[in-house]
Amino acid sequence: MSAVASVAGPASDKDPLRVRYGAVRARSLELLAPLSAEDACVQSMPDASPAKWHLAHTTWFFETFVLERHAPQFQAHHAQFRVLFNSYYNGVGAQHPRAARGLLTRPGLAEVIAYRDAVDTRIDRLLDSAADDVRALIRLGLEHEQQHQELLLMDIKHLLGQNPLAPAYTSGTPHGSAAAACVWREHAGGAIEVGHAGDGFAFDNEGPRHRAWLTPYALASRLVSNREYLAFVNAGGYGDATLWLADGWSLAQREAWRAPLYWREIDGAWFEFTLHGLQALDLDQPVCHVSHYEADAYAQWAGARLPTEFEWEAAAATPPAGSMRSSLQPCATRGGDGFDDLHDAVWQWTRSAYLPYPGFKPAPGAVGEYNGKFMSGQMVLRGSCCATAAGHARRTYRNFFYPHQRWAFSGVRLARDL
Amino acid sequence: MSAVASVAGPASDKDPLRVRYGAVRARSLELLAPLSAEDACVQSMPDASPAKWHLAHTTWFFETFVLERHAPQFQAHHAQFRVLFNSYYNGVGAQHPRAARGLLTRPGLAEVIAYRDAVDTRIDRLLDSAADDVRALIRLGLEHEQQHQELLLMDIKHLLGQNPLAPAYTSGTPHGSAAAACVWREHAGGAIEVGHAGDGFAFDNEGPRHRAWLTPYALASRLVSNREYLAFVNAGGYGDATLWLADGWSLAQREAWRAPLYWREIDGAWFEFTLHGLQALDLDQPVCHVSHYEADAYAQWAGARLPTEFEWEAAAATPPAGSMRSSLQPCATRGGDGFDDLHDAVWQWTRSAYLPYPGFKPAPGAVGEYNGKFMSGQMVLRGSCCATAAGHARRTYRNFFYPHQRWAFSGVRLARDL
Amino acid sequence: MSAVASVAGPASDKDPLRVRYGAVRARSLELLAPLSAEDACVQSMPDASPAKWHLAHTTWFFETFVLERHAPQFQAHHAQFRVLFNSYYNGVGAQHPRAARGLLTRPGLAEVIAYRDAVDTRIDRLLDSAADDVRALIRLGLEHEQQHQELLLMDIKHLLGQNPLAPAYTSGTPHGSAAAACVWREHAGGAIEVGHAGDGFAFDNEGPRHRAWLTPYALASRLVSNREYLAFVNAGGYGDATLWLADGWSLAQREAWRAPLYWREIDGAWFEFTLHGLQALDLDQPVCHVSHYEADAYAQWAGARLPTEFEWEAAAATPPAGSMRSSLQPCATRGGDGFDDLHDAVWQWTRSAYLPYPGFKPAPGAVGEYNGKFMSGQMVLRGSCCATAAGHARRTYRNFFYPHQRWAFSGVRLARDL
Amino acid sequence: MSAVASVAGPASDKDPLRVRYGAVRARSLELLAPLSAEDACVQSMPDASPAKWHLAHTTWFFETFVLERHAPQFQAHHAQFRVLFNSYYNGVGAQHPRAARGLLTRPGLAEVIAYRDAVDTRIDRLLDSAADDVRALIRLGLEHEQQHQELLLMDIKHLLGQNPLAPAYTSGTPHGSAAAACVWREHAGGAIEVGHAGDGFAFDNEGPRHRAWLTPYALASRLVSNREYLAFVNAGGYGDATLWLADGWSLAQREAWRAPLYWREIDGAWFEFTLHGLQALDLDQPVCHVSHYEADAYAQWAGARLPTEFEWEAAAATPPAGSMRSSLQPCATRGGDGFDDLHDAVWQWTRSAYLPYPGFKPAPGAVGEYNGKFMSGQMVLRGSCCATAAGHARRTYRNFFYPHQRWAFSGVRLARDL
Repeated sequence: MSAVASVAGPASDKDPLRVRYGAVRARSLELLAPLSAEDACVQSMPDASPAKWHLAHTTWFFETFVLERHAPQFQAHHAQFRVLFNSYYNGVGAQHPRAARGLLTRPGLAEVIAYRDAVDTRIDRLLDSAADDVRALIRLGLEHEQQHQELLLMDIKHLLGQNPLAPAYTSGTPHGSAAAACVWREHAGGAIEVGHAGDGFAFDNEGPRHRAWLTPYALASRLVSNREYLAFVNAGGYGDATLWLADGWSLAQREAWRAPLYWREIDGAWFEFTLHGLQALDLDQPVCHVSHYEADAYAQWAGARLPTEFEWEAAAATPPAGSMRSSLQPCATRGGDGFDDLHDAVWQWTRSAYLPYPGFKPAPGAVGEYNGKFMSGQMVLRGSCCATAAGHARRTYRNFFYPHQRWAFSGVRLARDL
Repeated sequence: MSAVASVAGPASDKDPLRVRYGAVRARSLELLAPLSAEDACVQSMPDASPAKWHLAHTTWFFETFVLERHAPQFQAHHAQFRVLFNSYYNGVGAQHPRAARGLLTRPGLAEVIAYRDAVDTRIDRLLDSAADDVRALIRLGLEHEQQHQELLLMDIKHLLGQNPLAPAYTSGTPHGSAAAACVWREHAGGAIEVGHAGDGFAFDNEGPRHRAWLTPYALASRLVSNREYLAFVNAGGYGDATLWLADGWSLAQREAWRAPLYWREIDGAWFEFTLHGLQALDLDQPVCHVSHYEADAYAQWAGARLPTEFEWEAAAATPPAGSMRSSLQPCATRGGDGFDDLHDAVWQWTRSAYLPYPGFKPAPGAVGEYNGKFMSGQMVLRGSCCATAAGHARRTYRNFFYPHQRWAFSGVRLARDL
Repeated sequence: MSAVASVAGPASDKDPLRVRYGAVRARSLELLAPLSAEDACVQSMPDASPAKWHLAHTTWFFETFVLERHAPQFQAHHAQFRVLFNSYYNGVGAQHPRAARGLLTRPGLAEVIAYRDAVDTRIDRLLDSAADDVRALIRLGLEHEQQHQELLLMDIKHLLGQNPLAPAYTSGTPHGSAAAACVWREHAGGAIEVGHAGDGFAFDNEGPRHRAWLTPYALASRLVSNREYLAFVNAGGYGDATLWLADGWSLAQREAWRAPLYWREIDGAWFEFTLHGLQALDLDQPVCHVSHYEADAYAQWAGARLPTEFEWEAAAATPPAGSMRSSLQPCATRGGDGFDDLHDAVWQWTRSAYLPYPGFKPAPGAVGEYNGKFMSGQMVLRGSCCATAAGHARRTYRNFFYPHQRWAFSGVRLARDL
Repeated sequence: MSAVASVAGPASDKDPLRVRYGAVRARSLELLAPLSAEDACVQSMPDASPAKWHLAHTTWFFETFVLERHAPQFQAHHAQFRVLFNSYYNGVGAQHPRAARGLLTRPGLAEVIAYRDAVDTRIDRLLDSAADDVRALIRLGLEHEQQHQELLLMDIKHLLGQNPLAPAYTSGTPHGSAAAACVWREHAGGAIEVGHAGDGFAFDNEGPRHRAWLTPYALASRLVSNREYLAFVNAGGYGDATLWLADGWSLAQREAWRAPLYWREIDGAWFEFTLHGLQALDLDQPVCHVSHYEADAYAQWAGARLPTEFEWEAAAATPPAGSMRSSLQPCATRGGDGFDDLHDAVWQWTRSAYLPYPGFKPAPGAVGEYNGKFMSGQMVLRGSCCATAAGHARRTYRNFFYPHQRWAFSGVRLARDL
């Protein structure tokens, strides 16, 4: 094997998948660098996972779906990791209970990193001669790991956010600029094609590409800002049942919500817990860490609504006309001629439920559990956020969370009917 | 007022709304006839309400939305009924807690019937001279009461179903006929118009009428039968995670589901609790009282899927072509040339989430809480069932329940892509 | 039956057990008279039972422990009542779930009364020739029924107390007199004999009689009044953690306790929900419906403590010396020369856990589940209350509830060390 | 400090409190040695605390109750530690929520050890001139720390026991010897004195010393063994309701108990998770990690009962007579002439509730929250266990846990009436 490697060496060095594999795997460890072993081990709520678990589970994915099925003379790195780091693949067998991931002080962080190294070595070897289907699985594993890189940041933020010491994940101060003016960008609607097409990578849930019909609509040129959302808070939005979906109202009362997840009111001033620690609330930044319920209530209060996922996708594909029919509170100022923050700022809640597209079929086997079985009860978010791995998202990308969840980097773009 | 009434008397006797009002209100009392005051008072679970509460709440609807707003010199029948019998209208004020409706042994059943009589008398008087908007509200109140008539039957069935004595709501034995053959009826798809149009009554959630696009599909000509569903049970369908949506699997495990809600296995034979008491399971009848999760898992097992609500609506509008591309398990036999049981048998789960149509706006004021605020987390069912009031449903009617709920008369019609 | 009765009439009429049987059984129905069938059917919380269930269960006790074991040619009145009305006797077999007693709208109240009549007839017949052990079981059944008579009143009060209409169980206004002065009655302590002795009836948990040792102590001559307890409320007693047992504090915070169970503050004035409906709080009456936690916190605040059950029993046996060492807040005034309200007012929480006496052995068989298996986690109350059946309690009687429970007629008598 | 120390060195070296302080504090760190920072950070259930938290909290105790009140120019080590590491002292102020102790990845373990060092330095300085009351507080702090040393081992065992890898806390194999014969040791009863007396240290809950009266009884000469307990398991003890207290039965059913907490049945053989990892069940060792409910049910099954705490204390004070009235299953063999395992093996459940002794008064101030406020709902255990700090327990020592708790090193000694 090493002989083959040495022969193929120079060529394989240029294999873009090998390069990408190295980069993505290294990025996960970079994300871990600011954390202590303690930080990496603890689970702050059942929805979240320890950082160490993310490192191990993404490795398990490669071991289980690539090495076990395709590497010659496969031997498991550790007999029990198959169960410990299986997230939810019933097709692979039993799983360590999700809510108990944080109890796994063993294997320790060093052992998990050794597990990563061992799998990386074997994937590297396999890449020397991997067939296209195996390369596709490796590619899937990398996209999967990028998803977990974002989850890792969400989960670490949540964990540190529970700590009264409000520790910073990373030093430095976030640098914001003034919010742009917000205008309505119109779209004529009609028959459109939605869903992924072409050769590039996409998850199964982004297809099949199919036709849909849109009624004329407008989208806000930028995201709702903290300033605008604070006006909703100050106007009593969290206390006015008529603005809320019934499920949202009931939950908000039960859990005494009165602001986004990480906002903190201290002596009458608003702060926000961030990956840089506690910061004065930057009114120019997009509001973040709101649930779908809050996003919907805000839109209701603003006389608007959330976009559908296809409205978002169509707008992202269409250069805005530059014209604007009207300006509307809270988008009061004439703006530029495009959409701000379609990507990289915060995920954008839509009013679309996460459901299969016409003709959707999950992949056969355990890998088919990746997306399809979650198509119940969740809402689609579009775009991407500051924590999304570079190059991971795309115009057809469908992120999804339950409407009550707030620990994703989720914000609001308004829409309205024309 | 009385002068007007006496003049208009003979004519108003023919007022179809007055006739309908009398008929609908009388029907509610007929439904109560087989029940004791005890049966009418008890609440078997938070989702259900006591029969007495249904009688009172539907009356409260007329008193609050019609009489209080439109009757001269309005006086409340009882000062506290405004709170006691308000279901969920935050715009009207406080509500007695939903889960505590069954604790209201007072007012007793006789007092509630007296409340109905008093309100009926005042509505009757108001009808002598009601303007169109008031007549529309009365019409809405009657549709609302018909919805509660079905809920009353669902709730009574659930209550009696908790009783080890398995008491019958009504005597007699249900008479079933053999299940028809089941074939696939094809639909070419394309652009269609969906949603309510025309002058007839419809709920706000059925509009606006708008265009949608359908990919070619086929619907089963009839509902899934108990026989077919039993095959799924016997094949281990409740124990195979790969067939289930993740949320459904988790719930089914937690609550140890192994058959539809009212099925009972006694000494190896299957029975079903019905409004006629415990009956041997009639294999030819449509399966009933399954959740969306079960419906979806069954469809998965059968190599099919659930229809979307627009597929259902389009099929209901289109005479089937009489042709059939293929027959497929469990629809193995060539059938007739139409759809069986589009209405009146069981509600049919769709794979569509209950969401607003493009351009949907709830009515202003408290009455606007009727439908819109529930557009989160629920799934649409189409058709109607044996417990639906005569003439209540229509082709565009959108019923909705949470995917875990099973106490509605809900069944399964299969669909598949072409 | 009537023939037998007429022959045996004169003699049997004088059988005191037969007379007592008739009186106790009639009393249960008297207690039901103010209730509708609806009132009698509903269960307001898992700890409570429907009034109808009490009627049926006390009858079940006679049927199961007397007739089934001792009546010739026994036939069950109804095959399923054995399960439906078994409270907790594992030795008898399965039980209908406690929390689901309120779902039994069938059998209806009339059927339950018919069940009572049928069992009464058979017991009457059995009494013609019952041996002593059978007579002892019947006697036990009557004491058992008297316990349920009090429970029935507790449970009905709780049910009506949940109703915003605050309906009265019985008309009339309670008549109170001014609270007597409260003084400390001293007791020298030393070796005493405690527990039941003699021929009269007692429950198994009242024995064996045995020796105990008491340190010198004093008991308050009367119960803590609403006036005194209100001072504790007004002094912030419900907000001062240092007064409370840890479990009590935690519960009081979680459930937001701020006064006894049935106190209601309306526009700044205190009312109390009673069996006579809502009444202005009578400051001279003993405080009632407090948990052990509240009783203990009150005593702590008052610079005193709760008595042990043996201190109470010894005092009840000893005429107070008439002397008084000191008067202490809240017992500020010199009083008479005895104890007020040892019985009939409210049950008196002690600081004694409900545990077996030395040498305690439960009766063999299912009847042995009557008392012993509850000797865990509960606290003893001594005395009796306004709702206790006449002649039911005695000096050695041990009532018991969990320290958090408040729906019994439970109050406070203070004690202190000398 | 070092200057002062070098001057005072020889003298202070002989201060036994200073010596003891050093030894106890060092012991806590020794216990931590086998753990990773991850192990030390995680909390496996709300009843347990992270090892790191124990290190910090015991330090907080010295800082808060000794330094803050008695050290000149006191400055808090860290402003927020006062809240973070306050366990339950309401008198000291707010507390970090108990169930969220495991979320404190910061301060990290190294910071907590630095906190310990800083406080140790200051206590050392204070000891140069501490008055008697301060020395008594320091002594209390050491006893407190010893209690937490045992809790730390309980909690670590629980944490590692949740891990499917079953990691060992410490290497080596436990060495057991054959169980001794078990005989009944009789005690004549009568008036005894119980509770702490004399000059040695004792917790407030061990006094006042007072007289009690005992009925004649016998205690088993040794603890119930795994062999004996396994016979109970194999005889169906966990499935026989008649053996159990009602609360215990209900819990055991709900949580599906079928053996002590750490027993594991693997392929038909019994193992026990221990601090040495998973070991074959040693049948000769005392059964451990049973709840009070299980201890009581076992005793019932064995035809015996649990001792009262005073029976235990009297026996521990009295050399056994050497005679034996009878031998009884499961104590079948004539034994030696004393009690085995009064200390050091496992804590021994009694049938006594944890309640105040006559005349008990908690210390004034926050330190008075140490014991008294927990005197509700818990049961007394006597003796000590393998995890108890050397020299910590004594004959009058009262340990206490809720009857359902199993993670303490708790076992069973039988008693019976004579």
